[in-house]
Amino acid sequence: MIAVLKQGVSKKQIENLCHWFREQGIDVHISEGEYYTVLGLIGDTSKIDIELLEDLDIVESVKRISDPFKSANRKFHPEDSVIEVGDLKIGGGNFQLIAGPCSVESQEQILEVAEGVKAAGASILRGGAFKPRTSPYDFQGLKADGIELLLIAKEKTGMPIITEIMNANHLPLFEHVDIIQVGARNMQNFELLKELGRTNKPILLKRGLASTLKELLMSAEYIMAGGNERVILCERGIRTFETYTRNTLDLSAVPMLRELTHLPIVVDPSHATGMVRLVKPMAMAAAAAGADGIMIEVHNNPSKALCDGPQSLTPEQFKDVAQKIRKILEVVRE
Amino acid sequence: MIAVLKQGVSKKQIENLCHWFREQGIDVHISEGEYYTVLGLIGDTSKIDIELLEDLDIVESVKRISDPFKSANRKFHPEDSVIEVGDLKIGGGNFQLIAGPCSVESQEQILEVAEGVKAAGASILRGGAFKPRTSPYDFQGLKADGIELLLIAKEKTGMPIITEIMNANHLPLFEHVDIIQVGARNMQNFELLKELGRTNKPILLKRGLASTLKELLMSAEYIMAGGNERVILCERGIRTFETYTRNTLDLSAVPMLRELTHLPIVVDPSHATGMVRLVKPMAMAAAAAGADGIMIEVHNNPSKALCDGPQSLTPEQFKDVAQKIRKILEVVRE
Amino acid sequence: MIAVLKQGVSKKQIENLCHWFREQGIDVHISEGEYYTVLGLIGDTSKIDIELLEDLDIVESVKRISDPFKSANRKFHPEDSVIEVGDLKIGGGNFQLIAGPCSVESQEQILEVAEGVKAAGASILRGGAFKPRTSPYDFQGLKADGIELLLIAKEKTGMPIITEIMNANHLPLFEHVDIIQVGARNMQNFELLKELGRTNKPILLKRGLASTLKELLMSAEYIMAGGNERVILCERGIRTFETYTRNTLDLSAVPMLRELTHLPIVVDPSHATGMVRLVKPMAMAAAAAGADGIMIEVHNNPSKALCDGPQSLTPEQFKDVAQKIRKILEVVRE
Amino acid sequence: MIAVLKQGVSKKQIENLCHWFREQGIDVHISEGEYYTVLGLIGDTSKIDIELLEDLDIVESVKRISDPFKSANRKFHPEDSVIEVGDLKIGGGNFQLIAGPCSVESQEQILEVAEGVKAAGASILRGGAFKPRTSPYDFQGLKADGIELLLIAKEKTGMPIITEIMNANHLPLFEHVDIIQVGARNMQNFELLKELGRTNKPILLKRGLASTLKELLMSAEYIMAGGNERVILCERGIRTFETYTRNTLDLSAVPMLRELTHLPIVVDPSHATGMVRLVKPMAMAAAAAGADGIMIEVHNNPSKALCDGPQSLTPEQFKDVAQKIRKILEVVRE
Repeated sequence: MIAVLKQGVSKKQIENLCHWFREQGIDVHISEGEYYTVLGLIGDTSKIDIELLEDLDIVESVKRISDPFKSANRKFHPEDSVIEVGDLKIGGGNFQLIAGPCSVESQEQILEVAEGVKAAGASILRGGAFKPRTSPYDFQGLKADGIELLLIAKEKTGMPIITEIMNANHLPLFEHVDIIQVGARNMQNFELLKELGRTNKPILLKRGLASTLKELLMSAEYIMAGGNERVILCERGIRTFETYTRNTLDLSAVPMLRELTHLPIVVDPSHATGMVRLVKPMAMAAAAAGADGIMIEVHNNPSKALCDGPQSLTPEQFKDVAQKIRKILEVVRE
Repeated sequence: MIAVLKQGVSKKQIENLCHWFREQGIDVHISEGEYYTVLGLIGDTSKIDIELLEDLDIVESVKRISDPFKSANRKFHPEDSVIEVGDLKIGGGNFQLIAGPCSVESQEQILEVAEGVKAAGASILRGGAFKPRTSPYDFQGLKADGIELLLIAKEKTGMPIITEIMNANHLPLFEHVDIIQVGARNMQNFELLKELGRTNKPILLKRGLASTLKELLMSAEYIMAGGNERVILCERGIRTFETYTRNTLDLSAVPMLRELTHLPIVVDPSHATGMVRLVKPMAMAAAAAGADGIMIEVHNNPSKALCDGPQSLTPEQFKDVAQKIRKILEVVRE
Repeated sequence: MIAVLKQGVSKKQIENLCHWFREQGIDVHISEGEYYTVLGLIGDTSKIDIELLEDLDIVESVKRISDPFKSANRKFHPEDSVIEVGDLKIGGGNFQLIAGPCSVESQEQILEVAEGVKAAGASILRGGAFKPRTSPYDFQGLKADGIELLLIAKEKTGMPIITEIMNANHLPLFEHVDIIQVGARNMQNFELLKELGRTNKPILLKRGLASTLKELLMSAEYIMAGGNERVILCERGIRTFETYTRNTLDLSAVPMLRELTHLPIVVDPSHATGMVRLVKPMAMAAAAAGADGIMIEVHNNPSKALCDGPQSLTPEQFKDVAQKIRKILEVVRE
Repeated sequence: MIAVLKQGVSKKQIENLCHWFREQGIDVHISEGEYYTVLGLIGDTSKIDIELLEDLDIVESVKRISDPFKSANRKFHPEDSVIEVGDLKIGGGNFQLIAGPCSVESQEQILEVAEGVKAAGASILRGGAFKPRTSPYDFQGLKADGIELLLIAKEKTGMPIITEIMNANHLPLFEHVDIIQVGARNMQNFELLKELGRTNKPILLKRGLASTLKELLMSAEYIMAGGNERVILCERGIRTFETYTRNTLDLSAVPMLRELTHLPIVVDPSHATGMVRLVKPMAMAAAAAGADGIMIEVHNNPSKALCDGPQSLTPEQFKDVAQKIRKILEVVRE
């Protein structure tokens, strides 16, 4: 870590600051320039609160050289993490295709979709039971009943399931869920992350709507610091000024995260674009960018269920996308 | 609500859609243009899920005319809400100055700051007990002990207190807290909002880092829908591409929210700017923009407590700011 | 176009407004709701200034149903535009790979790079002669001499060339340039766009750093309205809050623009990411998303030329990327 | 400037890099840490291209300690710049109120508005002659005729005038204009800035829609590097995800720029908010934040001229705002 001090800082002030660093076991190298004094801080600086330091009157700016995430950091863990989900693996060259409806609605619906996506090549079944909605007046999901229906579909098809948690108090309901999803709005619900860190379940952590990659990794760190290292990262679009698309899918997050961390990286093109017509090209692009998994919404009968399946493909459309993804993956892996 | 249908939609499809609206008690006016058909939807459209509708294949775009928030909407409640906090009032012309340290650290510290800010003109004491931190390795606050210390300061000074909640399970600890704060990162922690909707405490709801004003109001709506209408909104800076300042304080949110809602509006200039030097001009600007309250971080001894009081004024500096704010308020109220 | 009027607007005001619309040849359909009156405007509304209308006291909001771009609009021109560049074509299924150095530096350099990229599969040579730099103290390019060197390379290799214009007064220098590039910072330099509209050169128009797709298309419209319909759009990354990458490459712009317009769409992954390591995955992703062309910076000797070739691949690395792109294109076209 | 090198960089590579710095007259201090080597660069680093350096393979990151702007930098010019405009001064405690219509439309209109705003306390007259419009089909201003009308109003009222330039070739028309405005869309039209740097006119430079404060200052630097130091900066709102307001007025730019530069700072609340109802509170807030000037759109008869005066106050409303601003200024200056 490097701290740049302001012009006109006194010897005494520098001494006090250095003393304080050394008390915390940090070595300080001082180099004085014409306009600034620069302190090089050496040792375990991950405990130093950069915001507090930055705002001291005598400090011009602070730069962290080592990234503040440790467990997730590829520097200290050069090999890709491979996370086991049932009999499947994700990461380290293992790609998984996750598909299913936005919301679980009925046994008939979830079974039909599950069988459809399995036949088309999906390996993991997704489906929302607890739904985070911007409006309290919108449908909030079937909740516990939705999880029950997912478990039936899991039993019938043999597919592992993933579904979102919104409240740590609901954890007992997730006992047989294979991957627990943390939604974008809860990426910095630190109390929930801490609780999930005490479980041994794979956690799919979605990037917040306006979160940096560093913050995503720090949220992964909350889970990992608790002992659960089975974290899967998910890019799902960020908020920008553009309005034609709902969000802006940041595919450069895939190779960038690949460099920063050893954790698997999944892309969700359905929520990012908000348009079924954009799912296919963006899913193919995500595969080409090197994602370890792609998560796609699929619905059994969008035309009948008028108020459903907005960003969702039909199983037929999904089959086409899945084939294209497989071919792109062959090119990537060559 | 207006739904614009795509070119080439069949009579049959329009009929089906209209039938579906009417089943939900919505009247439909159809007007056909050269390139588009426009449906005017009349009735209680607040239950219609705009995202789902938007993504139907036959729909070009949807525009909500009435805002989807009802309880918070000034249209249905033209008078300013006045919220009582102990013997104080906020909103409807009642201005309150909230001050105190970022984190509660010790009895000596909180008492010294509390007395300092009271003497300087603050009416409500703030202080962090549970601290949301981006990194799991940073100081997380004194937690229950911090609340205890705040209650001691409340008793000694007679000031009502405000402090942040991060977990609905901690609610019993907040029994004697006067205002419960929901931080920016939890603005869309809907489970927490629902729980707070079941209390009868005033809630200060901070705008999320990348939340629109509509989303802020929808989150207020979550609390109000549960029966607790005592919500105070707080602008605290949004995330942009600018890097000199930590966030960008959106002061136009104050007059804009004033128009949209009857709820009181508070501004926090300390977190937004991240720089003590910017707090004074931005606090004055917030008062001039018409805020019902301003919340400022104040620390007893920033120079001694090296790792504290980053964005914090000293009580002496705060006194100067408080005087300026009062004079600005006189101009605003003339 | 739809205009929603505010509650409480008088009959007289509505009449005045409708009269004014009709004077401009616009038909008005009035439908009155409980809280609002909605005007449906039918006819050539492209001349109505939406911002002016929006800000009338009696108007709540305005929604344009037809997009305000006409020449670029796919609705009025369903076939893909194919633009001829020398003997090459771009658009309508014709893909071109554009490569070359960030700046032209010397005859030796540009010839070496040109031959390298041609051998590796590039079909068009890029190179900066006039360089837009944030700082007036940074290198501004070889200017007219740079164009001379590009023309020599064009003659030796037979490749068409593309280079950026910054000032309409320089147009005579571009007489033998095949494609004129308008950089992101000049996307809304309307005076420059108008001048280019009077030429018959293909124009590659880069999206501004914070421009919406609609604004990009309106800028294309400036060129096309002048009579020059040979416009190629280029996505090069937008500005967000993320700091690991220089910009955020918005690949969803590719399928979204495909739907909105018939113009060819090129992606520049070099500038967007600012990191040579991200160019390959993002170039592959751009091909998978359906781009009509990809523009990549290539430098002959990045290790020697210390202060050059930042975002640039070596010709060797480029060859590898070009092969992967070709294979992705095969999958896309199947 | 500080350059952090990557782990595993060889002695030889470090030597080469240091050699290259020293050739450019830069002293290098090397300090080696456990994971990184840090180079402290001392001397005139303003000529070093930070982007190029950042992207060298062996460089982890670069941090500029001194800001890259020199002429505009308060560090090298601690006193506020005071810019003379006719008999008026702006900056260094001299506040000016700029007002006038969005577009000049007729002699009658501009004279009526000019007299109205002068009586209400404005000291400088604004009015658009060349109008940058997103759409080529929108009204582009009266151009040369508009400037003629402004000059008539200047003669009749004695007020200095400000109007926007879009093309350096139009400079002869601006001979008697007192302040030349560069609009947000041209903030990085470097060719235009260079031409303006060769004039001796005060230039009001508007911040680009997505420009950082550093970029705004670098654009000022383009003008100042040419010899014209009479630059006035203008905050006019930046682009964010919020949609209720047209842009987000960044008032923290005022105190932040105050710290970074000695140039005067003006705020334009009319364009930022896009709503006449928000102009008054935001103008008051701008004054409270410490602006050296405020620029407000005023129109003579918004109700008659249906398609005009969108963000514009009437002279009567403006008079009220001007009085409030004066009272706020008294509080600020106390």
